[in-house]
Amino acid sequence: MIRLGFDVGGTNIKAGLFDAEMNYLSKKISPFPKELGHHSIVGKMYEISRAMLGENGMTEKDVAAIGIASAGEIDPVDGVIVRAHNLDFYNVPMRTEMEKFYPGVLIKLINDAAAATLAEHGKGALLGCKNAILIALGTEIGGGMIIDGKLYRGGLSHGVELGHMTLSMEGPMCTCGNRGCIEAFCSATWLKNKGQPAGYTDAKAVIDAAKNNEPAAVKIFDEYVGNLSTAIASLANLLDPEIVALGGGVSLAGDFLFEPLREKVKIKSFFRYPYKIVPARLGNDAGTIGAAVNTV
Amino acid sequence: MIRLGFDVGGTNIKAGLFDAEMNYLSKKISPFPKELGHHSIVGKMYEISRAMLGENGMTEKDVAAIGIASAGEIDPVDGVIVRAHNLDFYNVPMRTEMEKFYPGVLIKLINDAAAATLAEHGKGALLGCKNAILIALGTEIGGGMIIDGKLYRGGLSHGVELGHMTLSMEGPMCTCGNRGCIEAFCSATWLKNKGQPAGYTDAKAVIDAAKNNEPAAVKIFDEYVGNLSTAIASLANLLDPEIVALGGGVSLAGDFLFEPLREKVKIKSFFRYPYKIVPARLGNDAGTIGAAVNTV
Repeated sequence: MIRLGFDVGGTNIKAGLFDAEMNYLSKKISPFPKELGHHSIVGKMYEISRAMLGENGMTEKDVAAIGIASAGEIDPVDGVIVRAHNLDFYNVPMRTEMEKFYPGVLIKLINDAAAATLAEHGKGALLGCKNAILIALGTEIGGGMIIDGKLYRGGLSHGVELGHMTLSMEGPMCTCGNRGCIEAFCSATWLKNKGQPAGYTDAKAVIDAAKNNEPAAVKIFDEYVGNLSTAIASLANLLDPEIVALGGGVSLAGDFLFEPLREKVKIKSFFRYPYKIVPARLGNDAGTIGAAVNTV
Repeated sequence: MIRLGFDVGGTNIKAGLFDAEMNYLSKKISPFPKELGHHSIVGKMYEISRAMLGENGMTEKDVAAIGIASAGEIDPVDGVIVRAHNLDFYNVPMRTEMEKFYPGVLIKLINDAAAATLAEHGKGALLGCKNAILIALGTEIGGGMIIDGKLYRGGLSHGVELGHMTLSMEGPMCTCGNRGCIEAFCSATWLKNKGQPAGYTDAKAVIDAAKNNEPAAVKIFDEYVGNLSTAIASLANLLDPEIVALGGGVSLAGDFLFEPLREKVKIKSFFRYPYKIVPARLGNDAGTIGAAVNTV
């Protein structure tokens, strides 16, 4: 049983060809062609899949299922990307377009953070958990939840928009219609925006400078840890999780992030117990693995 | 199969005697005797139960199970009220104390908002829901969630502290260790505290005056609806619920609350769909019914 998994993001399209045990047979990464329309992007995904199949002496006929993870809001029933701002995709019928290349093959769409949560639950940081949270700290904030041993797909199948929970109701207006969302205070974009006036080009530059004890960067990073600790405590007060795993670029800061974060979360949590706060394990592979797992 | 259900709150102890179909055979309400210690309170609960049994020509031997709902954090495994500030109960072994009066009888503890959620799901506003939220707008904020058709009891069995999610990270310090919790902005206490400088004695007085179009009260009430709509949108962005039911004293404001609330929540929600926001149905009975249902 051979599966394809795609992870379509604003920067790259990642792809994986998987055997029945969800091991990679091949993987590829290719820049997201911003200048092309979505028809061409699905064509590009098809080309990538042909290359991977060729490397393994296979053809399209060997593919039993295709999983596609994408940023944004997904309609899993109709196989449509409802809206993904950073892809500039609105009501894109990905499944129908992919069916032109793979007629009769099972094709399923899933939000990228939900896919990452599935992957981490299947073979990563959330392995064996019954109730857990994944937060992806990237340009935006994604997230997913395992509830009672399964991915929570939303009560009405719209999914989970963890980044659009409120952290500060007096905060900046968000595209979602609300103010002061977690995304506005805990994303890599927040670190970048705070860092630029102080001369840092991006989130990583702020983190590196904070590690080098540069006072301006230390101040920004401390504020970031404060924001993120509040967000985690708030979520954990609702869900009482076993584990909170953090992925995305900011999580690569490692213990420099996790150690002060754990201290602050402990103080801010209603339940005074040490639920674990750990790094996600699958890194850039989480989306493609999760997309493929979602077809099982 | 006869069950007892108790709902122990800072103002009253409510009690119900239930038949196998969870219909009341008797119900009683009695002031919470603040001046007594918890031993005496359990004694008082026993007296109430004897009176209800007597009314039905029954004795203690007829009782198959006892459910106790209480404010605060509950340890359901050991049957202990871990902490309930407004009862002044800390580490109170309710089950052990009740077993002295009812040896050998199944006795289960549950948080009062969780009990209300179970009751509303069993025979109230959340009947038939797979994924839904109850928020109790009282002196404090309680809440519960139905996930995948069942009460969510917390990933580590600590329960759900919906009132201690963050609404404003710059807000006032909370006893939980965090700042600006939902409870600080959406409880009846908030309405009372805002109303008193304007001459209103309590939340109900503010609501009644707002209904009469008194400008000071209208301003406070509008701000309250703003706070609550943000809290509901935030929760719904995470959980994508079918229904959000509101109970507690403030919910008795009726359409005067629900109509503007629905408008504001719609604007603030990430998913642009009309999940329902409705009044809870069981009122003061929710706790005792839920406590009894929890023993099934």
